[in-house]
Amino acid sequence: MMLNSPLSQDIQNKINSKTKPVGALGQLEQVALQMAVIQGKGAETAPKSILVKKPTLIIFAGDHGIAEQGVSIAPSVVTQQMVANFLAGGAAANCFCRTNDVAMEIVDCGMIAPVPSKAEHYFEQRLGEGTRDFSQQAAMTLEQVERGLKLGAERVHSLAVQGCNTVMFGEMGIGNTSSAAALLALLSKQPVEQCVGYGTGISNQQLALKRTLIEQAVIRVSEATPKQALIEVGGFEIVQMVGAFLAAQEHNMIVLVDGFIVSVAAYVATLMREECLEQMIFAHCSQESGHQLLLALLEAKPLLDLALRLGEGTGAVIALPLLRASAEFYNTMASFEQAGVTV
Amino acid sequence: MMLNSPLSQDIQNKINSKTKPVGALGQLEQVALQMAVIQGKGAETAPKSILVKKPTLIIFAGDHGIAEQGVSIAPSVVTQQMVANFLAGGAAANCFCRTNDVAMEIVDCGMIAPVPSKAEHYFEQRLGEGTRDFSQQAAMTLEQVERGLKLGAERVHSLAVQGCNTVMFGEMGIGNTSSAAALLALLSKQPVEQCVGYGTGISNQQLALKRTLIEQAVIRVSEATPKQALIEVGGFEIVQMVGAFLAAQEHNMIVLVDGFIVSVAAYVATLMREECLEQMIFAHCSQESGHQLLLALLEAKPLLDLALRLGEGTGAVIALPLLRASAEFYNTMASFEQAGVTV
Repeated sequence: MMLNSPLSQDIQNKINSKTKPVGALGQLEQVALQMAVIQGKGAETAPKSILVKKPTLIIFAGDHGIAEQGVSIAPSVVTQQMVANFLAGGAAANCFCRTNDVAMEIVDCGMIAPVPSKAEHYFEQRLGEGTRDFSQQAAMTLEQVERGLKLGAERVHSLAVQGCNTVMFGEMGIGNTSSAAALLALLSKQPVEQCVGYGTGISNQQLALKRTLIEQAVIRVSEATPKQALIEVGGFEIVQMVGAFLAAQEHNMIVLVDGFIVSVAAYVATLMREECLEQMIFAHCSQESGHQLLLALLEAKPLLDLALRLGEGTGAVIALPLLRASAEFYNTMASFEQAGVTV
Repeated sequence: MMLNSPLSQDIQNKINSKTKPVGALGQLEQVALQMAVIQGKGAETAPKSILVKKPTLIIFAGDHGIAEQGVSIAPSVVTQQMVANFLAGGAAANCFCRTNDVAMEIVDCGMIAPVPSKAEHYFEQRLGEGTRDFSQQAAMTLEQVERGLKLGAERVHSLAVQGCNTVMFGEMGIGNTSSAAALLALLSKQPVEQCVGYGTGISNQQLALKRTLIEQAVIRVSEATPKQALIEVGGFEIVQMVGAFLAAQEHNMIVLVDGFIVSVAAYVATLMREECLEQMIFAHCSQESGHQLLLALLEAKPLLDLALRLGEGTGAVIALPLLRASAEFYNTMASFEQAGVTV
């Protein structure tokens, strides 16, 4: 964020004029500042109001060849079953979207088998039938990465056209913490050990295997640009999320960033285009050790820390009311002058 | 909570049957469990659904004699000005109540001067014109404490009759972190130094004075029952909050507990009736050092940690959507069986 620009100064002054001790709303003040900087872009004075319009969760689903190695708590078929569950409204993400008035879209980015559905909010953007096992070979081709970036972006373009200005991304893909950990290790040059964690809850034995396989991939690839890293160790849903982050930046949207896997996609996007970071508000610190490492790299302090380890964008959706609260105090809270409160 | 009762076991089984890895919703699972234990009281099997009905924030306001010593960032007149601000809808608490669909009531428990208002949600329950300076003498009389407990309880009785099952308490009272710190030190026998903090943001010099004055009061009183402690170092709004906590327990309501001052009132209530703790969900860890000490004493891990230091019940109101989210997943999230997801 351009924290010393005339715009951000004017926004900070507006926030400081509100009937509260300076800084007393803590992180909500930082959220309001960031939202106002985003929505005031191009102006020199603080926007009169900041808005959360048509907030939407897009869940990107895909399968991973590496899952066959037994690095997850469930088999790949669960990806598809959970997508059916999203479509039926029965998953945690559905519940939280309902209580927080968030729209949901589901994208098949390349599950092993598609889910037959004509639902309006369901999109088939399949890059294949699961990736190849990246511990043995490249997960996908350059063509798949480029098509994936484009397809992911399209979903966000389409929402922007409909007037949405706030997006959240979620993911479903058995094996995808492995892909995320490998991407993180490869691109950040941090030790594999610190990038890999228990995912949704594997055993210590599985964790050891997961580390070995990821180590193997990192040694195989050794050096990579973000795009090369996606080819080598990425996932179809992760690639499309990266595209979605890039598009959100083009449309100057707020992106409320979920846990580990989504944050890795966010990280890849920032490596491709640094400005993407300005749009991001980090929602939840997951229990995955790699997430904590990544948040430190990005100097991000998420809003929530509720020990979630589910994915689906759940951490982002439950944080959304904090954005609405921040916008409301920015928009309608009285100043000392208006309220006649003695400073 | 009776965590090993047949009821809580049945609730836990229901939560574990949902389409997610066991425990993957982290603290939200604990919230759902606690809400279900409260709402299932008397039954042996898990309630079918748990509800957040007519959630209401009651802000208790009062003035403090000790404020004349200069232990706060603002003079006592600000209590009254902020109450006028609540009535006009311009404070942070109003903003958050609006975005989170929470009703608000404001209670004058004994400000120096009343605010003339005929607003339906405004209640004059004055115990006096501010307390006496507790660094020099008892803050109030036994009669005031008993009347205060009753009046505070009445507000909650009245909400219960209207069908509200979830309450939040907030406070406004220049000087009230001093009273809360003194109550905590006196009743917990913890060192004054650890119980006293910066409040909404005093200087180091003010902090030193605040500590000295509270130390003085603790030495003067030395030993006290909860009621005696309220007489000696309490505040009118704190006394009425204690009464409100006791009443919430009688009505088996959920209480979402805000920051330091409200938590001290909660603590006093638990010392008077241990079962009160079962109703309490802690919302926010404030920056006040005494709050962290108290939360450790109560073995409570609050839902949020957003560096708020404002009071008004703001921390509780912004946490409410997490209760709605918890209830919704408990009520409507599919089980593995329902969704046909392979365990």
